[in-house]
Amino acid sequence: MEIKEYIKKTQSKFFEDLFSLIRIPSVSSHSHRKGDLLKCAEQWKKLLLEAGVDTAEILPTKGNPVVFATKIIDPKLPTVMVYGHYDVMPAEPLELWNSPPFEPEIRDGKVYARGADDDKGQSFLHAKAFEYLLKTKQLNCNVKFILEGEEEIGSPSLEDFCKKNKKLLKCDTILVSDTSMLAAETPSITTGLRGLAYWEIEVKGANRDLHSGIFGGAVANPIMELSKILAQLIDKDGKITIPNFYDDVEKVSKKERELIAQIPLDIEAYKKNLGVKHLHGEKGYSTIERTGIRPTLDVCGIWGGYTGEGSKTVLPSKAYAKLSARLVPNQQYEKIAQLVEKYLKKIAPKHIDIKVTRLHGAASYVCPIDSKEYKAAEKAYEKAFGKKPLPVRRGGSIGVIPVFEKVLGVKPILMGFGLESNAIHSPNENFNIELYEKGIETIVEFYKQYNS
Amino acid sequence: MEIKEYIKKTQSKFFEDLFSLIRIPSVSSHSHRKGDLLKCAEQWKKLLLEAGVDTAEILPTKGNPVVFATKIIDPKLPTVMVYGHYDVMPAEPLELWNSPPFEPEIRDGKVYARGADDDKGQSFLHAKAFEYLLKTKQLNCNVKFILEGEEEIGSPSLEDFCKKNKKLLKCDTILVSDTSMLAAETPSITTGLRGLAYWEIEVKGANRDLHSGIFGGAVANPIMELSKILAQLIDKDGKITIPNFYDDVEKVSKKERELIAQIPLDIEAYKKNLGVKHLHGEKGYSTIERTGIRPTLDVCGIWGGYTGEGSKTVLPSKAYAKLSARLVPNQQYEKIAQLVEKYLKKIAPKHIDIKVTRLHGAASYVCPIDSKEYKAAEKAYEKAFGKKPLPVRRGGSIGVIPVFEKVLGVKPILMGFGLESNAIHSPNENFNIELYEKGIETIVEFYKQYNS
Repeated sequence: MEIKEYIKKTQSKFFEDLFSLIRIPSVSSHSHRKGDLLKCAEQWKKLLLEAGVDTAEILPTKGNPVVFATKIIDPKLPTVMVYGHYDVMPAEPLELWNSPPFEPEIRDGKVYARGADDDKGQSFLHAKAFEYLLKTKQLNCNVKFILEGEEEIGSPSLEDFCKKNKKLLKCDTILVSDTSMLAAETPSITTGLRGLAYWEIEVKGANRDLHSGIFGGAVANPIMELSKILAQLIDKDGKITIPNFYDDVEKVSKKERELIAQIPLDIEAYKKNLGVKHLHGEKGYSTIERTGIRPTLDVCGIWGGYTGEGSKTVLPSKAYAKLSARLVPNQQYEKIAQLVEKYLKKIAPKHIDIKVTRLHGAASYVCPIDSKEYKAAEKAYEKAFGKKPLPVRRGGSIGVIPVFEKVLGVKPILMGFGLESNAIHSPNENFNIELYEKGIETIVEFYKQYNS
Repeated sequence: MEIKEYIKKTQSKFFEDLFSLIRIPSVSSHSHRKGDLLKCAEQWKKLLLEAGVDTAEILPTKGNPVVFATKIIDPKLPTVMVYGHYDVMPAEPLELWNSPPFEPEIRDGKVYARGADDDKGQSFLHAKAFEYLLKTKQLNCNVKFILEGEEEIGSPSLEDFCKKNKKLLKCDTILVSDTSMLAAETPSITTGLRGLAYWEIEVKGANRDLHSGIFGGAVANPIMELSKILAQLIDKDGKITIPNFYDDVEKVSKKERELIAQIPLDIEAYKKNLGVKHLHGEKGYSTIERTGIRPTLDVCGIWGGYTGEGSKTVLPSKAYAKLSARLVPNQQYEKIAQLVEKYLKKIAPKHIDIKVTRLHGAASYVCPIDSKEYKAAEKAYEKAFGKKPLPVRRGGSIGVIPVFEKVLGVKPILMGFGLESNAIHSPNENFNIELYEKGIETIVEFYKQYNS
């Protein structure tokens, strides 16, 4: 049976199985969801066994457990390891969802739900591609699956897990579907990821919320002071002002920048999609460069004082912000984290207290485009999409990718099938059903090309 | 019976009655509390009738109703009108209260509850003083009570109500207990109030929350842009940068500033009470000047993006702030509001959308210290506290005070008995039981002095 026919025949079962994963709110940021994370790991184990793996286990880590499964058909054959994650981002703000985030809904040819893309949807494509190859006796490699439950909080336990289980995780190549393509008609393979550093900042003024009429003007306002601190971090040209921040940024050659300039991006459509009249970023770089080869600094959240309805004349005691930096190749997470923390403390005025807590970090990653694996992936996309995929460095971060390279010595191939309009990490996350199908086709084709 | 004895004998009834008001969460900022506001007005009416007024009514306004009561003993005698408000500030953040805000609790000689001071506690002292004078046949004036339910949102309906009910509200003096004293041992009468202007600011970037890795660096971050806007409003010397903001600020003479410098303020105790190592405000002015004779600008709240536990790499769509200005004599609310709104829009960069909503405003107020009323109040405090009270201009705003002056032609006397440590508008609002008693004594003495 051809793969297209198989997909059509098994479509209802595909949705049934995928939705069984999505319905479990496995939000790794929320400590009260521990039980759901375990439940989701159990469900993955069940689905992988149904797909035909020989063994499937739930292995402990320092944090949430890992689901690990294997199908060894011949020890002499190469081994492909599939990585994915079963945890998801928080769904808040809930009021902006058009349908409940953990009750998947199909509308206009798309599945809407938290995890429809990132990463339940994408990683599940591998289980189905594997199942097809196995059932039709076309599987030509050994296969391992590793699914973790802490990707969205920076994979804090996986490096340690990899170090302790090198033998178990031994493989020839690693496939990861957790990224997006340029467009449904412009397939692309992610060949670079930015690193990530993330902090929570607390600024404290007085020991309690005060009446702004009685104390306003006499004691520091922590929201104002936090605003002043944040405002100093990026200058009018969009440059990050933290001393030495750009020191290690990889120099991208003129030739490479010329190639980047050839990547098609319809700026008017991009602005329209985002609903903005003007784009805004670092001076001297294009939009693709700003999100691919340049480091960035973003405030992801801010809160303090009275945030309810109407007015309350309060001079708050504390103000908070969540700050994150995306790092490019050669920037070391640890070094950058220290630079930022040092600078925040330096510019904080003496009339407030500042506390900076590091939440998580990840290194950056670059994948070569001349390897056997990359070429197999390239051909697979070409077969499924009818177009050669473009190699593109993307702005996102996947903490474990550089860890695999460092600990296992294998450079993962980022075979993503998402779209930027999929609203991952946002309300109304979604995935095109057609791309689920093309994704499975591409993965099936990868195995054929890889060990032909 | 002497007043001290009367207070002692009726103490449990005093708490019972006051607590019946406090237990009703009459938060005027919260639209879902309309029913509680009406309930609180009804309870006030009942308590005033019990205290001995001839008539008590609930009169409609454009907003929450007014409780109005009268005791006319002889039309030829002067009439004292008592103003207070039965609405309270929101109690949030609830987790910072040591006991539930609407369940009054007595600890260490203090009542802890929202409204224990502002203004249920303070205004109720007038009902008890009136009751005593009436019962002991010492009442020597006609008395009117007016209690409104919108003071904490800027009394938007009271000016109109006063204009339409000039005859009803006709009086010779107005007493208001809604302010604080310098200290329990340093009685003071508030002779000036700052005006108030209040805005909500919305800054919008993209049309939805975005993944900070994919879009960060390419599109404006509304939290960063809001921070930059706020940071520009006050310079490093603590001066407000809005053009023409200080134009109409009343010039305080050198002599007056010398008098202000003589007001005792223990800066070390002040800092200790607030838990700060350094005070912070406008350069060139003392703490008392900063909170009394100088206008100020404070951010009362800020929010946007992800504010939950842990990390979420999101580039938010919107960020919000609540901004308020305290205005001094001669600064016109309407003019300042326009200056601020114009400036905010001017400095907002083109890559974001800004929306500024005016929430409420109030004029400033100055009370002469040579009037018959002021002198009666001065003597009353001296009798009850054993010390002549200091006249002090305070930083707070009571929207209706300048309205009474403008519409009724009467300059209210601000006979406050609160303390700055009472945490009004903050968690754990409280009031010293001893000061409740001294407050009643002072008010009783006022009547004696006023019409002796």
